[in-house]
Amino acid sequence: MKALKERILRDGKCFPGGVLKVDSFINHQMDASLMRSMAVEFVRRFASARINKIITVEASGIAPAIMVGNLLELPVVFAKKKKTSTMENMLCTTIHSFTKGKDYTVCVSSEYLGPEDKVLFIDDFLANGNAALGILDLVQQAGASLEGMGFLIEKAFQKGGDKLREQGIHVESLAIVDSLDDCTIRLRD
Amino acid sequence: MKALKERILRDGKCFPGGVLKVDSFINHQMDASLMRSMAVEFVRRFASARINKIITVEASGIAPAIMVGNLLELPVVFAKKKKTSTMENMLCTTIHSFTKGKDYTVCVSSEYLGPEDKVLFIDDFLANGNAALGILDLVQQAGASLEGMGFLIEKAFQKGGDKLREQGIHVESLAIVDSLDDCTIRLRD
Repeated sequence: MKALKERILRDGKCFPGGVLKVDSFINHQMDASLMRSMAVEFVRRFASARINKIITVEASGIAPAIMVGNLLELPVVFAKKKKTSTMENMLCTTIHSFTKGKDYTVCVSSEYLGPEDKVLFIDDFLANGNAALGILDLVQQAGASLEGMGFLIEKAFQKGGDKLREQGIHVESLAIVDSLDDCTIRLRD
Repeated sequence: MKALKERILRDGKCFPGGVLKVDSFINHQMDASLMRSMAVEFVRRFASARINKIITVEASGIAPAIMVGNLLELPVVFAKKKKTSTMENMLCTTIHSFTKGKDYTVCVSSEYLGPEDKVLFIDDFLANGNAALGILDLVQQAGASLEGMGFLIEKAFQKGGDKLREQGIHVESLAIVDSLDDCTIRLRD
């Protein structure tokens, strides 16, 4: 997606260790108009999918997910990173974060994810794919079906996209970073 | 706001200790269409305010905030609940959560909140007002000005609204809960 790629090249910042910082327009300060354009692009790319629910993970996934849900008039469920005291009947899974060097648990209530659900997962980043595989686990635990996964930015060199596509999952990424070597952002055409 | 009040009475659940659970349409599963209607209502109520940025706190504030940002074509900054390794120049404040019985730190980068900013704070709940006062502290640290605070639901019996209004802050709540006594939801007309 042209507008996103141009923005990444203009405002994205690269740090050693394969870190791409897009804090100025995606995951700390958010460009709401760009967010809407990206949501429109997801709607286009998943036009042939039969979806009745959007799922995401707090916190950075919520903005793109609610924009897609708004366009499609579908409910949006966000998996929570901790089990909260007022939540019952939770489906949980453990995800290892390479970025943060630790495991965390994400949970979704079985009240809001069940066998009748055909879900589209939306998130900001696809890197090694651990968060996405965690969501797939939750979807499977719930007996729901996963219709697709949409990411704003995929870091192709971290191989998460390969893992997901090998499983036959319909993956769409609006910008694909092929390399951050030498702190230069190289995007796929 | 009529649609929200009707929805709270229909789908909200009351728990002992003044807990109102709106997990089915606001802060776990989100009704994206209702979220948009609520954002439109915020735009209407803050029509006379001069705003150049929306601010919120992760995670439940992000959805209403991005919807407002989208309508007003303004950037949306969400304060983060932990200092992350890739963030520099952080402004931080400590907030006490009565619900969770502990303190937490929220931070915003000074890159995205500064003296030129006239901000509208959007969040899902206003209870004792500690989160809102924490944001006010961040806004003041940044030298920015606070133009208003909008909440989806205000629990009036927890007095946060009083504290904010006493300081002269323009507070708008789309639904005001006067009491949850005897686990009955009583909304203000």
